[in-house]
Amino acid sequence: MRATVMRQGQLVVAELDDPTPGPGQVLVRTVACGICGSDLHALQHTDEMISMSEAGGGQPLMDGMPPMEVMDPSRDVVMGHEFCAEVVELGPNAGNSATGDLVVSMPVAFDMNGLYPIGYSNTYPGGYGELMVLSDMLTLKVPNGLDAHHAALTEPMAVGHHAVEKSWVSAGHAAVVLGCGPVGLAVIAALKLKDVEPIVAADFSPKRRELALAMGAHEVVDPREQPAVEAWRALDGRKPLVIFEAVGVPGMLEQAMRDAPRATQILVVGVCMKPDQVLPMVGVVKELNMQFVFGYDPMEFAETLRRVAEGEVAVEPLITGTVALDGVAQAFRDLADPETHAKILVVP
Amino acid sequence: MRATVMRQGQLVVAELDDPTPGPGQVLVRTVACGICGSDLHALQHTDEMISMSEAGGGQPLMDGMPPMEVMDPSRDVVMGHEFCAEVVELGPNAGNSATGDLVVSMPVAFDMNGLYPIGYSNTYPGGYGELMVLSDMLTLKVPNGLDAHHAALTEPMAVGHHAVEKSWVSAGHAAVVLGCGPVGLAVIAALKLKDVEPIVAADFSPKRRELALAMGAHEVVDPREQPAVEAWRALDGRKPLVIFEAVGVPGMLEQAMRDAPRATQILVVGVCMKPDQVLPMVGVVKELNMQFVFGYDPMEFAETLRRVAEGEVAVEPLITGTVALDGVAQAFRDLADPETHAKILVVP
Repeated sequence: MRATVMRQGQLVVAELDDPTPGPGQVLVRTVACGICGSDLHALQHTDEMISMSEAGGGQPLMDGMPPMEVMDPSRDVVMGHEFCAEVVELGPNAGNSATGDLVVSMPVAFDMNGLYPIGYSNTYPGGYGELMVLSDMLTLKVPNGLDAHHAALTEPMAVGHHAVEKSWVSAGHAAVVLGCGPVGLAVIAALKLKDVEPIVAADFSPKRRELALAMGAHEVVDPREQPAVEAWRALDGRKPLVIFEAVGVPGMLEQAMRDAPRATQILVVGVCMKPDQVLPMVGVVKELNMQFVFGYDPMEFAETLRRVAEGEVAVEPLITGTVALDGVAQAFRDLADPETHAKILVVP
Repeated sequence: MRATVMRQGQLVVAELDDPTPGPGQVLVRTVACGICGSDLHALQHTDEMISMSEAGGGQPLMDGMPPMEVMDPSRDVVMGHEFCAEVVELGPNAGNSATGDLVVSMPVAFDMNGLYPIGYSNTYPGGYGELMVLSDMLTLKVPNGLDAHHAALTEPMAVGHHAVEKSWVSAGHAAVVLGCGPVGLAVIAALKLKDVEPIVAADFSPKRRELALAMGAHEVVDPREQPAVEAWRALDGRKPLVIFEAVGVPGMLEQAMRDAPRATQILVVGVCMKPDQVLPMVGVVKELNMQFVFGYDPMEFAETLRRVAEGEVAVEPLITGTVALDGVAQAFRDLADPETHAKILVVP
């Protein structure tokens, strides 16, 4: 098969052996796969990402499972973990899906030897390739005639859904969302479905602020002009507030802690790979709660697919481009400009 | 009255004007007052403490109240916020307490002009002086014939009680307590009353580890020999774990995050006044929750007094010395040695 491969720190299009489905697995043909900010990071700061994953202790995605494979960057990796695909062949004992099904899956594969993060694995190629092997029992058939390109957004939208589920928010709360990249936008969509109001979102980019409004934010601000918490205070200022930090660069946590009102919960959704400095005393004096979040569980993933399929979450505005395999490297560069792009889909 | 005064960064014994109780206030004679680690910090790093308090936004201790006075270190401060005292005079409209009552109080005074932190105030002297003015409605009569020296421990024990109440722990949980100074020991006592088991406590000092066992820890470790989380894993390793960070020096948060199992809650009870570095990615990958805590509420303070008075919490082992006003400066130096002292009481 053809695939865009991360090889020696570069993205190159290459011919690889077709993967083969083992017991309980299916072979699928990738229809569309989103490019995630983590992929950009993995390419530019591979060693940093790996050392951080190891510092996290090779934690299993689900309790009771073996730790995940940690990729070896000196060997080929086919990235891409936000995919929609068509089942083309069933392995032994696979009966959850049928040939021809359009499916999505959590980006995890398992076999007798362990658990693998599809998209950051040397063993299981991700959606930047024509073919993938998925675990049959994790595949979810795309319902309701949902377009495959939209279904590919299930994964990033599930990240936002999970962050909101892990937080204290419910109807009657207010929320501030710092950063309106795909994760921040997914958070906004999930907050909207919880009847959280107001949702105040902050981003430097006018285009991203526009997308935030499209996803359901009630107010958007340029943080250079007005801090989001200040905008919330002017607009509401009374309901209990939850802050979602979806930027993930050093300094954001400290800023969120300084701006937060007393007893606020801060959801750390942005993936900051670098060491960061905080002022613990600020957290102490205000009795802040900081909840770090990662991924989603299978139920949240399935619920997100349902929401997207039933039009409760409109993902179309997020898709700002599609590229073929030989356009992935350029797409990585294009994604640096928030004015032009939110989510680019790879269509192998 | 005589008092040990913080004046130009020194502790000096001086003669001050007697304070006068206003409406709703009472004049009390200090019987005993504990020396708190925060007092040591306030003397050595006054400016740092003030700038951190201000970064916290002059937060009120109770919602809806005006912000607290922030002390001016260029003017006299009589520290001491862990006190037991005898009522000697009632101000106008004070009827909660009676002359001769032995009382404790949260270290907060209020009047028509605002709210004041007793012990860190230029306006209301604390327990390192012979006399104090308290808000009548905050005084609690010491019950059950409890010794005044023991009653003075209500305040630090309430800090531990509050930290445990703010946490996720309940019977069926396990806990690790990092640091066995007075705050860590108060946490252990409160955990014990919640039937948390095992409680694994860590401290460099053999004396403090001995106190931890006396307060109810099931296992104690020297963290140079074995990290506390490792000791918990060897002992239990199955129950959901909550970690109480009661050391409060830079690096402890990062260490606690690295050692914590997935989905652990970390209670930040130690008051680290310095900027501190964390690895957010470690928190993200493990989905840690970090709850910062501060102080206690009036109900928790009253409940702690009841526990101490009824012998549910044995505070006697914590009291390792008493000094008169002219011994406070030396006591501050002596407290640097954890082998000799836990809590020293000032008896004016």
